[in-house]
Amino acid sequence: MNFPLAKSIEILERTPDVLIALLQNISSDWSSKNEGGETWSVYDIVGHLIHAEKTDWIVRMEIILSDKPDKTFVAFDRFAQFENSKGKSLSQLLDTFKALRKLNLENLRLKNLTNENMEEKGIHPSLGEVSLSQLIATWTVHDLNHIAQISRVMAKQYKAEVGPWEAYLKILQL
Amino acid sequence: MNFPLAKSIEILERTPDVLIALLQNISSDWSSKNEGGETWSVYDIVGHLIHAEKTDWIVRMEIILSDKPDKTFVAFDRFAQFENSKGKSLSQLLDTFKALRKLNLENLRLKNLTNENMEEKGIHPSLGEVSLSQLIATWTVHDLNHIAQISRVMAKQYKAEVGPWEAYLKILQL
Repeated sequence: MNFPLAKSIEILERTPDVLIALLQNISSDWSSKNEGGETWSVYDIVGHLIHAEKTDWIVRMEIILSDKPDKTFVAFDRFAQFENSKGKSLSQLLDTFKALRKLNLENLRLKNLTNENMEEKGIHPSLGEVSLSQLIATWTVHDLNHIAQISRVMAKQYKAEVGPWEAYLKILQL
Repeated sequence: MNFPLAKSIEILERTPDVLIALLQNISSDWSSKNEGGETWSVYDIVGHLIHAEKTDWIVRMEIILSDKPDKTFVAFDRFAQFENSKGKSLSQLLDTFKALRKLNLENLRLKNLTNENMEEKGIHPSLGEVSLSQLIATWTVHDLNHIAQISRVMAKQYKAEVGPWEAYLKILQL
């Protein structure tokens, strides 16, 4: 396998266990609060990751690799989790994310993607032409982005509690 | 136990396993690169977390709870890991961090800290008077800060690879 596929899979296959280590059975005090206003809680973010596993990465890969004349992706719904997560515990969401990710990585591996495949293109509804290689790199950075966001959302609950140390903790200033 | 102690321990006891899930046996391509200049790699950050377990949190707690007339902390060495990590694998560092954290949390629990203890004070060499409660909250946010930093350091390796998606990935703009 070629860069960035193998390197990407190294991260992609770890993310569910990272989230489980950080969040499984955590008190709702940590998981239900957001950064204020329309921002997302940890619970919302895990729901968003599930929706992306269902409708974004692999679906878009299939469009790129297809013979369709129009390879424009369907726009991603950034708010789907508010409806889809209803009635589910964080623990259920984490298990669902882990199961979907496993399935999606099996699907990815079964494609035996070549260097040529990685350069095939699709059309992002806002960003225009993008390659399969860029899609897979984005999938990976998207994971890391949300791990960092989850850490930040949790850290900010302690903004007042750290007292004068706030000045040294960059995460509280983001 | 009182807030923020129990709530803090919930995070503090998870961090070693979060880092192991994210980093154990990861290729050095991910762990050895930094954000440019004098910034830290993932390997450097784990070394820094070890040094903090050894010289910061519990050591400062002991000063706060002591009868010493001068409760000024020794300044923390932010560069100790460059010497101390030499010759060690990332895997060794992760195991060391996990063992030290376990020991420190056992120490913390054995103190049976009261609400009154949490309000006791020490003197930070730059920040001035701080309470035990603020120290423990800072220990917690410090973990989350470095989990976010590790995610960012790794994500930035893919800044070019994501192509036009860079615009949507906040972590690449930090």
